[in-house]
Amino acid sequence: MIVGDRVGGRSLRWGMVGGGRGSQIGYVHRSAATRDGIFALVAGALDVDGERGRAFGIALGMDPSRSYPDYKVMFTAEAGREDGIEVVSIATPNNTHFVICKAALEHDLHVICEKPLCFTVAEAEELAGLAKSRQRTVGVAYGYSGYQMIEEARALVAAGELGDIRVVNFQFSHGFHNTAVEQESPSTRWRVTPEFAGPSYVLGDLGTHPFYLSEVILPHLRIKRLLCTRQSFVGSRAPLEDNATVLMEYESGAVATAWISAVNAGAMHSQKIRVVGSRGSLEWWDEHPNQLSLEIQGQPPRLLDRGMPYLHGTALEEDRIGAGHPEGLFDAWANLYRRFALAITGSSQTLTFPGIEAGLEGVRWVENCVRSADQGGVWVDYR
Amino acid sequence: MIVGDRVGGRSLRWGMVGGGRGSQIGYVHRSAATRDGIFALVAGALDVDGERGRAFGIALGMDPSRSYPDYKVMFTAEAGREDGIEVVSIATPNNTHFVICKAALEHDLHVICEKPLCFTVAEAEELAGLAKSRQRTVGVAYGYSGYQMIEEARALVAAGELGDIRVVNFQFSHGFHNTAVEQESPSTRWRVTPEFAGPSYVLGDLGTHPFYLSEVILPHLRIKRLLCTRQSFVGSRAPLEDNATVLMEYESGAVATAWISAVNAGAMHSQKIRVVGSRGSLEWWDEHPNQLSLEIQGQPPRLLDRGMPYLHGTALEEDRIGAGHPEGLFDAWANLYRRFALAITGSSQTLTFPGIEAGLEGVRWVENCVRSADQGGVWVDYR
Amino acid sequence: MIVGDRVGGRSLRWGMVGGGRGSQIGYVHRSAATRDGIFALVAGALDVDGERGRAFGIALGMDPSRSYPDYKVMFTAEAGREDGIEVVSIATPNNTHFVICKAALEHDLHVICEKPLCFTVAEAEELAGLAKSRQRTVGVAYGYSGYQMIEEARALVAAGELGDIRVVNFQFSHGFHNTAVEQESPSTRWRVTPEFAGPSYVLGDLGTHPFYLSEVILPHLRIKRLLCTRQSFVGSRAPLEDNATVLMEYESGAVATAWISAVNAGAMHSQKIRVVGSRGSLEWWDEHPNQLSLEIQGQPPRLLDRGMPYLHGTALEEDRIGAGHPEGLFDAWANLYRRFALAITGSSQTLTFPGIEAGLEGVRWVENCVRSADQGGVWVDYR
Amino acid sequence: MIVGDRVGGRSLRWGMVGGGRGSQIGYVHRSAATRDGIFALVAGALDVDGERGRAFGIALGMDPSRSYPDYKVMFTAEAGREDGIEVVSIATPNNTHFVICKAALEHDLHVICEKPLCFTVAEAEELAGLAKSRQRTVGVAYGYSGYQMIEEARALVAAGELGDIRVVNFQFSHGFHNTAVEQESPSTRWRVTPEFAGPSYVLGDLGTHPFYLSEVILPHLRIKRLLCTRQSFVGSRAPLEDNATVLMEYESGAVATAWISAVNAGAMHSQKIRVVGSRGSLEWWDEHPNQLSLEIQGQPPRLLDRGMPYLHGTALEEDRIGAGHPEGLFDAWANLYRRFALAITGSSQTLTFPGIEAGLEGVRWVENCVRSADQGGVWVDYR
Ligand SMILES: NC(=O)c1ccc[n+]([C@@H]2O[C@H](COP(=O)([O-])OP(=O)(O)OC[C@H]3O[C@@H](n4cnc5c(N)ncnc54)[C@H](O)[C@@H]3O)[C@@H](O)[C@H]2O)c1
Ligand SMILES: NC(=O)c1ccc[n+]([C@@H]2O[C@H](COP(=O)([O-])OP(=O)(O)OC[C@H]3O[C@@H](n4cnc5c(N)ncnc54)[C@H](O)[C@@H]3O)[C@@H](O)[C@H]2O)c1
Ligand SMILES: NC(=O)c1ccc[n+]([C@@H]2O[C@H](COP(=O)([O-])OP(=O)(O)OC[C@H]3O[C@@H](n4cnc5c(N)ncnc54)[C@H](O)[C@@H]3O)[C@@H](O)[C@H]2O)c1
Ligand SMILES: NC(=O)c1ccc[n+]([C@@H]2O[C@H](COP(=O)([O-])OP(=O)(O)OC[C@H]3O[C@@H](n4cnc5c(N)ncnc54)[C@H](O)[C@@H]3O)[C@@H](O)[C@H]2O)c1
Repeated sequence: MIVGDRVGGRSLRWGMVGGGRGSQIGYVHRSAATRDGIFALVAGALDVDGERGRAFGIALGMDPSRSYPDYKVMFTAEAGREDGIEVVSIATPNNTHFVICKAALEHDLHVICEKPLCFTVAEAEELAGLAKSRQRTVGVAYGYSGYQMIEEARALVAAGELGDIRVVNFQFSHGFHNTAVEQESPSTRWRVTPEFAGPSYVLGDLGTHPFYLSEVILPHLRIKRLLCTRQSFVGSRAPLEDNATVLMEYESGAVATAWISAVNAGAMHSQKIRVVGSRGSLEWWDEHPNQLSLEIQGQPPRLLDRGMPYLHGTALEEDRIGAGHPEGLFDAWANLYRRFALAITGSSQTLTFPGIEAGLEGVRWVENCVRSADQGGVWVDYR
Repeated sequence: MIVGDRVGGRSLRWGMVGGGRGSQIGYVHRSAATRDGIFALVAGALDVDGERGRAFGIALGMDPSRSYPDYKVMFTAEAGREDGIEVVSIATPNNTHFVICKAALEHDLHVICEKPLCFTVAEAEELAGLAKSRQRTVGVAYGYSGYQMIEEARALVAAGELGDIRVVNFQFSHGFHNTAVEQESPSTRWRVTPEFAGPSYVLGDLGTHPFYLSEVILPHLRIKRLLCTRQSFVGSRAPLEDNATVLMEYESGAVATAWISAVNAGAMHSQKIRVVGSRGSLEWWDEHPNQLSLEIQGQPPRLLDRGMPYLHGTALEEDRIGAGHPEGLFDAWANLYRRFALAITGSSQTLTFPGIEAGLEGVRWVENCVRSADQGGVWVDYR
Repeated sequence: MIVGDRVGGRSLRWGMVGGGRGSQIGYVHRSAATRDGIFALVAGALDVDGERGRAFGIALGMDPSRSYPDYKVMFTAEAGREDGIEVVSIATPNNTHFVICKAALEHDLHVICEKPLCFTVAEAEELAGLAKSRQRTVGVAYGYSGYQMIEEARALVAAGELGDIRVVNFQFSHGFHNTAVEQESPSTRWRVTPEFAGPSYVLGDLGTHPFYLSEVILPHLRIKRLLCTRQSFVGSRAPLEDNATVLMEYESGAVATAWISAVNAGAMHSQKIRVVGSRGSLEWWDEHPNQLSLEIQGQPPRLLDRGMPYLHGTALEEDRIGAGHPEGLFDAWANLYRRFALAITGSSQTLTFPGIEAGLEGVRWVENCVRSADQGGVWVDYR
Repeated sequence: MIVGDRVGGRSLRWGMVGGGRGSQIGYVHRSAATRDGIFALVAGALDVDGERGRAFGIALGMDPSRSYPDYKVMFTAEAGREDGIEVVSIATPNNTHFVICKAALEHDLHVICEKPLCFTVAEAEELAGLAKSRQRTVGVAYGYSGYQMIEEARALVAAGELGDIRVVNFQFSHGFHNTAVEQESPSTRWRVTPEFAGPSYVLGDLGTHPFYLSEVILPHLRIKRLLCTRQSFVGSRAPLEDNATVLMEYESGAVATAWISAVNAGAMHSQKIRVVGSRGSLEWWDEHPNQLSLEIQGQPPRLLDRGMPYLHGTALEEDRIGAGHPEGLFDAWANLYRRFALAITGSSQTLTFPGIEAGLEGVRWVENCVRSADQGGVWVDYR
């Protein structure tokens, strides 16, 4: 049970790049990081518009001298301070992740980077190498993995409750972009522009989330080959897709299907994962994240609830309130930032932590999907 | 509203092949056909064990002289009677459908045949030709299409409520055969034996159902190419699959995914169809068949209920009781048998009727799936 | 598993009073009774308009000479036939139940009567006395009690799964009469007219249903005192209520609340029952009757499904199709008519059968509710 | 959309009484108050055990000199500081609310007090008088009222979407105390001990929550008379109840039922409110707080989702993240603390704020319920 104790007894000195006023995900980072004072936001380069970014940083309570117009200026200036930032989060459009992350590591900062980590496996490996040589931690913002029931799912599989895994289905298929909303919405515009978004839209933007959940829940599975088809139902988005389907075969013989979409009209998130084993199945849905369905063949399905004593220990570690009360996205992210703090401070950690390998694997998955799709949706050996 | 009136004012003289005591689906046929006296069961060859079949027919109230040990005997004998059967239902294992159906048509009977209609498109075309030349109706027992909300789904799509169709997902994925239950259950045993089941297990046994629903709801879509992978998770079932995934691309550019399984451990039926258009989506689930979810982007999802005045006329035609009361499988099948009677008697019909083309299309779909799967899960042009 | 065998090997000769063309519940009776040929509809006086009734009977296939204009004529005529009816169902407005039932018993017929059985306990006792002296069975049409999951609920309580019963909540609160629909609908008009409906509208029309379910599930509880308030939200319905709340205290110390309404705007049926014991609870909802929620404190809630081997034997006795398939209202009623046939023929019966005492207890409950309500909603000792 | 701006540009200096380590609700207060730096926790007397309280305060980052062993010491000491606290939250067992709240007001502090505010209406009025004369704000911790969908419910009713209100049903009926868990749990022990809990257990502890929601959603309704029965199913809890039912009649003719319980075995929270009007109904459930069901008679029910543009403006004001993402309890409480800050700083406020009258009305409701129950469950005029 989390009651507000600080990791290591003090707040980590934290900066942010991106996440300016009006951004989609900036507030979530700040809310999560500063929960219980685990991180303290002392510096930032929050906006592509330097002045707007500075004003917002000041409004958020930063020392004006530490609300920077530009991340490079920030990294240099902070490196020169005794009390300079130790860790930085990057919440900018995808195309900038690689360069900013690299610059941060070169300034010996720990980094929490948005997904997708970068555009290519080669880039990701370069970042991983740098992180290793600089002995710095890189975390990737797979926020949904902070939900406690994901730990329960992982524990159930590890305990063999489902038997041998046979089928995995995951999806993240919302409907908010069923028309060309990018004409009005800048946050969508860059997502459908290769220069900013990278080689994919929904696969990278949405798909990496449940893909990472599948890795957390099923750490023993290795993809052997994969097939992806992608479509641009709003035609102006081509070559980037707004809908994709991926078939995967694992080394073990298990199979998976993923449906990733931004044109699932009328749906909210529809991020779900179902894992089917020889004995039973589990299913989780991010819109009602405090529940997990456990279905053992021949028994009535059970609806597990967050916070209940019948859960595995790892699923109870991060509860912040008793069972019955719904925790939400901000709590999941706060869990994740807490795990980042544990990783950064080298504290012991029992739960899943999406480090740079998780970021790399996400990029790899997208790269393989795109490679398959661009050949007409053929099977490609996973590499 | 159906209140018990007979189609054409009299009961059709009806016989059955298969559906003996202990069979899975025999009682459903009888219950549906005899509802409101639309069909009268006057003859039968109900069992592969002739004597057991005769005894059961008598127990069901047949004239002992018309409870036959064998369908050939029945067809001949009945053909010789003034009051002989006009129509026969075939509810035997798959391998016998073709021969029995053919024999029935050759005896100038109308036929209601279980799915899959037969093993190959060539066979199906032969039956279709025979039906045409003999001027006889062949209906196929796609029972789920009798649910009223399927008509509503069809009407919603036809009215353009969903906009242009983009994505279709359907599944029939139960968990009852997650282990080798066929060792104890004869009804499962023949299903996993190619000689009796044909070229596929779950694709034909389960998949043809939601595939037909997709045809009913989306009559304007034509499959262009298709890809299927299939697995035998219970190894002894090979070469027949107990799990399959199918990707489809339609001529229109829409795409579809199907998940068909008998090893979805812990699930009951999980027969679902979701249709996504440019404007909104609909979703239906056979375990709660009186509801249909209609989700228009930007509006709250609506849960439509059978029997309510806001539905389309075709969805209200076959109500048997006011809204709020659940109708079930037997009512859906009774609707279907009523439509069969309308077809057989040449009466006018506004609703969907799964005739021999529907049976043929199901066989074609399985054939294409198997062709793809057997080449390692590659795209095949639909033919 | 029911497969179509006849009770006692022959159809019972059955007549109907009421349930004419356009009536709400007539078709349900016929559909249920004739299922598997357990009853054969050979005579009827189906309508208050004698000629319309006769025409409808003939349309339903009756011998024209046995489609009567009037129930008295029918009882006399049928009594004079060798092959006269043995049993009659009464599906007329409430005010006629007593006289018709009495007349039927006086003609030595078994009776299946609609609820509420009559208007007063005194009347009910008179009918019970007559039934006893004539040695005839009276069944009451509590159709929902035919759902298999009600037997499961009963078995769970009997097995002590819930511990000591503490709280019972039941409701039947639809929204279809939120405005004065009786101005257009004859079926509603008599329901809100004391002369036809009796001393109550929703308590008798709707409330007796879940009240009977509570008796089936909790046979050991005896009401000690009760309090009822009732309202006529559509004012023209006064003195009859369209909404009522009832508090009950049982001898055992358990308590109950009932909410009965026809003005629960926007709701379909909302017939539900929740039983809370010291150990756990169960909940059932008639719109999804194949499921039953079982919630043991400290364990995840379980959703039990019809037809599954983990259910109690009594809940499996009347399955007509395998698990996963939804059975519906017509199947529940068919179960009930089957039990009526068993009772009438003196066959052995393991399941609940709503006989005349059940009818009497429903009338008693309404009488006590009305007595309380008419004194301003005070506690009255149950009598 | 909340993005982290501070109310009035600075953090309010905030202290806490109670909410020590291991307490149920202390962390929620701190998490909510310090969100976005709206309040800064600078002082505390967190525990009945002074030393434990001091240690915990220091662990939470307080200046050791401001982590007090006792609230009286704190109030005096802080009053003597230039930078002393301006506002204090009280999260101690019920019996202490009155004295601590009084002392705080006498030290000219704004107060955020846990519910129930105190034990009697007389006490509540005394506090209200004191708050008025000292010109201080008292907020009451009705945390659930911070959920955005409650504002939507309020707006729907205000806009007349439901028509005239007829029936209100609310409940908070969990199952966690189905046995005498108080033998092990101190947090439960005081709740069932009159000296600490006051005149009721569940009515005050749980019931005041949905009662307040009913006031927020239905501000125009005035209770005319009320009837309550209460039970102690775990006998050792007498005279305090662990289950209660309340009937209410409003001046308008509308009626309400409340079920409040801690012995609803197997249930999680089951805090729900349903409001039925002449035109339609709404329903909300605190376990899935981002949804609201809106059911207009004759239309399909709609499931409204937090954050969607179709909601009323007041329901969108406090969103912290886009639609589809679940917000939870901590976000609702943060909304509430934000509203408290607005009230304390005299800023303009469009949303509901549970001030001292809300606290008083809760106490009044409990007092009336207890008065009724203690006379045997009779109607009492509301006063
Ligand atoms: N983990 C998640 O659940 C999640 C959710 C949403 C977005 N994201 C990711 O977060 C990132 C940001 O997405 P968003 O939706 O918030 O985008 P957005 O367009 O809403 O906001 C981007 C922000 O970055 C700022 N920015 C852009 N370039 C900058 C630069 N060079 N220096 C400083 N600031 C700069 C912009 O001014 C803006 O404030 C993306 O990589 C996206 O994939 C992740
Ligand atoms: N439409 C549906 O929803 C649905 C559901 C279940 C089964 N089915 C189909 O129905 C058919 C039967 O399936 P089932 O599950 O009832 O099988 P089953 O094994 O349970 O029963 C088959 C019955 O056919 C009889 N039989 C076999 N060979 C016969 C012969 N030559 N002559 C007469 N009777 C013979 C058997 O004695 C048995 O009574 C299959 O084609 C199956 O695919 C359809
Ligand atoms: N068990 C249930 O679930 C259920 C459901 C609906 C109705 N009911 C009960 O069934 C009864 C009928 O209700 P309904 O909704 O079908 O009513 P309805 O008004 O729709 O139909 C009543 C029928 O009875 C006929 N009738 C009236 N007086 C008659 C007479 N003297 N002789 C012969 N026929 C006569 C009418 O012509 C009509 O056909 C009522 O007692 C009602 O409470 C029970
Ligand atoms: N608003 C809500 O949703 C909600 C939820 C839970 C509890 N509550 C209310 O919050 C209050 C506390 O409940 P809880 O469940 O956290 O209780 P708890 O027993 O878990 O914790 C009470 C805390 O108060 C401290 N305390 C007791 N007396 C004190 C004193 N004189 N000075 C300083 N500290 C003292 C205790 O040491 C303990 O830390 C109650 O009034 C309860 O009704 C409200």
